[in-house]
Amino acid sequence: MRATLMYAAGDVRVEDVPDSIITEPTDALVRITATCVCGSDLHPYGSMSAQDGPTHMGHEFIGVVEDTGSDVSTLRKGDLVVAPFAFSDGTCEFCRAGLQTSCEHGGFWDGLPGEGAEAEAIRVPLADGTLFPLPVAPDSALIPSLLTLSDVLGTGYHAAVRGGVQAGSSVTVIGDGAVGLRAVLSARRLGAEQIILMGRHQARTDLGGEFGATEVVSSRGQEGIEAVRQLTGGHGTHVVLEAVGHRPAYEQAFGVVRPGGTISRVGVPQYEEAPVGFASLFGGNITLTGGPAPSRAYMAELLPPILDGTITPGRVFDATTDLDGVPAGYQDMADRTALKVLVTP
Amino acid sequence: MRATLMYAAGDVRVEDVPDSIITEPTDALVRITATCVCGSDLHPYGSMSAQDGPTHMGHEFIGVVEDTGSDVSTLRKGDLVVAPFAFSDGTCEFCRAGLQTSCEHGGFWDGLPGEGAEAEAIRVPLADGTLFPLPVAPDSALIPSLLTLSDVLGTGYHAAVRGGVQAGSSVTVIGDGAVGLRAVLSARRLGAEQIILMGRHQARTDLGGEFGATEVVSSRGQEGIEAVRQLTGGHGTHVVLEAVGHRPAYEQAFGVVRPGGTISRVGVPQYEEAPVGFASLFGGNITLTGGPAPSRAYMAELLPPILDGTITPGRVFDATTDLDGVPAGYQDMADRTALKVLVTP
Repeated sequence: MRATLMYAAGDVRVEDVPDSIITEPTDALVRITATCVCGSDLHPYGSMSAQDGPTHMGHEFIGVVEDTGSDVSTLRKGDLVVAPFAFSDGTCEFCRAGLQTSCEHGGFWDGLPGEGAEAEAIRVPLADGTLFPLPVAPDSALIPSLLTLSDVLGTGYHAAVRGGVQAGSSVTVIGDGAVGLRAVLSARRLGAEQIILMGRHQARTDLGGEFGATEVVSSRGQEGIEAVRQLTGGHGTHVVLEAVGHRPAYEQAFGVVRPGGTISRVGVPQYEEAPVGFASLFGGNITLTGGPAPSRAYMAELLPPILDGTITPGRVFDATTDLDGVPAGYQDMADRTALKVLVTP
Repeated sequence: MRATLMYAAGDVRVEDVPDSIITEPTDALVRITATCVCGSDLHPYGSMSAQDGPTHMGHEFIGVVEDTGSDVSTLRKGDLVVAPFAFSDGTCEFCRAGLQTSCEHGGFWDGLPGEGAEAEAIRVPLADGTLFPLPVAPDSALIPSLLTLSDVLGTGYHAAVRGGVQAGSSVTVIGDGAVGLRAVLSARRLGAEQIILMGRHQARTDLGGEFGATEVVSSRGQEGIEAVRQLTGGHGTHVVLEAVGHRPAYEQAFGVVRPGGTISRVGVPQYEEAPVGFASLFGGNITLTGGPAPSRAYMAELLPPILDGTITPGRVFDATTDLDGVPAGYQDMADRTALKVLVTP
C-alpha cells in the first residue's frame, strides 16, 4: 500500500510500504477515505533530524472498516468511522473519566511503528474504544467537518473547556491556525463575551471574525501584549487559549492573562522548561492547564451540531489533494499558503 | 521603636528604628501584640546577599489600632485587628473577586519601605480594606490560632481551594512546615479521602496525622515519588499541594500527580523556570495553579471555626519569644528545632 513517510525536516515522501494487517484480536483494519496534514506535523517538518526518520505520518482520519479482530464487538466491515488522534481502550478509569489521551493501554499513532493515517489503510488498536461510527456515506459533503472531530475541533474545544470559558468570559486566542480558529468557535459556543484573536494572516483572522472573534491583534511579543491590555482595561483576559506550541506564544500567554486567570495550552509545547515563577504565573495566581485533547470524549457532543449544520468546522480546509500531493501539502502549510490540507487517499 | 531587620543571609538583628507614623489619610497605625516568623522568611535567611539589606521583616500580625488617618471609616482606636500578608483596598475588581493579593492599589509588606511586622508598631496602608477586626481581647488564649489567619491558615486553605480538593479526592501534600500542615487540615475539611503527607520531620508529620493525613512518606525525590505511586495504584493523586517553594518540590509534584490532576503551589517559588512541557505537565493534562493566598478573603469564613474550637491551627506554634528573641527564632526555624515561632513584642 501507499503511505506517507517523513525522512527529515522538509523531506516528506509517499512510498510503497507493507500492507497494514490485523495483529491483535482487538484491532480493526481501516481503509482510509479522508485524512489531513496537521499543524503539529509542521513541528517535525521544521526541525526533525534524519536520525529520527523515516517515520509514518498522519493521525487524523475517516475510513471504512475492512476487517476486525476476533475480540472487536461494536464494529462491522463496511462501517464508516472517524478516529481520534490517540487510540484508547474506552474502559480504563481514565477513559471513563473522559481523558482517553491518558488511557492505561492506549497511545498516540506516532508510537505505533509502521502505521500512519496519511496512507491507504491503517491498523487501529483497541478498535472498540477508539473508533466512532459516522451516520453518513464516505462521500458525504459533511466529511471535511466530520474529519475535524479527529483533532482540530476537539482540540479547540478542549482548550476552551479546560480554560473554563463561560458566559461573560474575556478570552485571548493565540494562533490563527486551524486549532486557534476552532478555539475561537468553541469560546463563542461556551458564551465568551470578548474574544481577541492574535494572528498575522488576514485570511485566517477574517475567518476567525466569522467564527466569533470580537477583535484581532496582529502584532506579537511585547507590542501584541500591550495591544491586548489596551483592549481589556489594562488587565488582560480571564482566559488565554494557546494554540501554537512555541515558547514565544507561551510568554505572550502569561503577558495577556488577567490576575487569577487561566492559560489553556493545546499547541504541543516545543519546549520543556519555561517561566512559572513569581513574575510569570505565581504572583498573579495564574492557572496553567491543557494538554492533548481527548477528542474521543467530545465526539458524541460535537457530532450533532455538525450533522445539523450549526457548526461548519470543515471550513478550515482550504486545499484538497490525493496521497501523491501530500508532500506539496506540507510545504504549502509550512509556507502558510494553505491553512489545512484535506487528503483523499 | 524596636524592629527586626535582616542584613544578609543568617544575619537578623533587632534594632531601634524611627517610629512608624501615619503618612496617608487611608493609613492606620497599629501597635503589634502578636507576630511570628514565616517559613517564607527562611528563603532570604538562607540566601540573601548583603547588597539587598537591611530590610524590615515580618508580614503576619495581630495588634491594637493606635491611630487612624482621616479617611479611615471602619476602624477605631483600641480595636484589635489581624492583618493579611498583603494590604489591599477592598474595593477594586480583584478585591471584590476575592483576589486581594492582586489588588490594583495594594501590595506586599516587603514592598513598603521602613515597615515590617516583627516590630513594636506598623503603618498599615488602605486600613479599611486590609485590617480585619477580632472579637477577642489581645491576651485571649485564641491569639495563636487567630494569628494564623494572617498567612499560614489562609495559605494552606488557598492551596486546597485552588487545587479543587473535594469529597473523595486523593491529595498529596508536599512539605511538613506550618503551611503544609494547614494544607492537610484544609484538604480534610474539604472532604479529601486520602491525604499523603510528604515530610521528613516526625514530630511534624505526627501532627499532620492528627490534622488528617492518612499516610506519611518520608523519602524524597524519585524514591518518594515511587512510594506515593505505590499508595495510589500506580497513578498518583488527583491533587498535589506544594507547600515548599524549592524546585525539587515542584519536580516531586509532577511526579506524583495523576493524569488530569492538579498541582496547587503556595510555597513561594525560589525558581523562575521549570519543566512545563510534554513530559512534565502537558502530556498528562496536568493543571498547575496557586499563588499568594488572598488571606483577607478567607478570614470571615475561617474565623468562626477558630472561635468555636472546631479547628486549632495555633498548634503550629511550638515556641514563643519576645522581640529580642527573634534572631534566635530564625535560627531555630532554619535548624528545624522550631516549627513556627510566635513573637509577642
